[in-house]
Amino acid sequence: MRVKSGEYLSGYADGEGSFCVSFSPSKRHRFGWEIRPSFSVSQNSDRAEVLYLYKERWKSGTIRPDRSDKTLKFEIRTIADLINSVIPHFRKFPILSSKRKDFEFFAQICELIQCKRHLVLKGFVQVVDLAFQMNPSGKRKYTKEEILKDLIFR
Amino acid sequence: MRVKSGEYLSGYADGEGSFCVSFSPSKRHRFGWEIRPSFSVSQNSDRAEVLYLYKERWKSGTIRPDRSDKTLKFEIRTIADLINSVIPHFRKFPILSSKRKDFEFFAQICELIQCKRHLVLKGFVQVVDLAFQMNPSGKRKYTKEEILKDLIFR
Repeated sequence: MRVKSGEYLSGYADGEGSFCVSFSPSKRHRFGWEIRPSFSVSQNSDRAEVLYLYKERWKSGTIRPDRSDKTLKFEIRTIADLINSVIPHFRKFPILSSKRKDFEFFAQICELIQCKRHLVLKGFVQVVDLAFQMNPSGKRKYTKEEILKDLIFR
Repeated sequence: MRVKSGEYLSGYADGEGSFCVSFSPSKRHRFGWEIRPSFSVSQNSDRAEVLYLYKERWKSGTIRPDRSDKTLKFEIRTIADLINSVIPHFRKFPILSSKRKDFEFFAQICELIQCKRHLVLKGFVQVVDLAFQMNPSGKRKYTKEEILKDLIFR
């Protein structure tokens, strides 16, 4: 099983992949929130072979059972791997649906984090602003207001 | 929006596409059953752009709202289009997951129908046998036994 070009994996990700930036309250992190960007692809475990092709191509990421035991999830959370593998891949082999907008926001966020811009107030707010433009139909645990409300006191 | 190679569409179909052969009781059809092969791809309508790429590339198929009004479905049912567009596409740009097995059964069934083999008893039984090896986790309205039970009287 071999992928001749990266277009196959981009096409697969257009349907099944997810670019996500979540926020978790954390006392250890600047501004009280941990920023967690991730790229993931889930599939029923009986036809999850393509997940291994991402791992093989990018030499990074993990594959593990998702909450339901019927699916497997390939996931990359490490910022270096996102910057060095995932983002260049989707720049070279672009997503063709409107999910491409999510990717563009995602890439901007990862680049801000890579340059440590999220450690200054302006950059952190910029990351939050960008993240809340992604996946507009998705559910979020915390609102933008909840994440930003305490910043004025810091 | 342009597809440089067919690999993108095969990758997308690996995740989101479906090769299906269903059976409906029909007095108009030989052996009392209409055989309906179809290739379809569904997607939430807010990011369904890729469905139009299949239609554009193959110059065939229909796009319409699925039962839920949140999704759109691209579908090809015409045997000539399946034989001339869909099957050659997936032979040239193969599905890389185990869904490929469904495609192989599907292609055999379409070729039997194209050659009118389903109009003789042996060919009809062969089609039913092949169809029931597809999508083993999927639900079927009729069992193999129900489809084959009356054949002895014909």
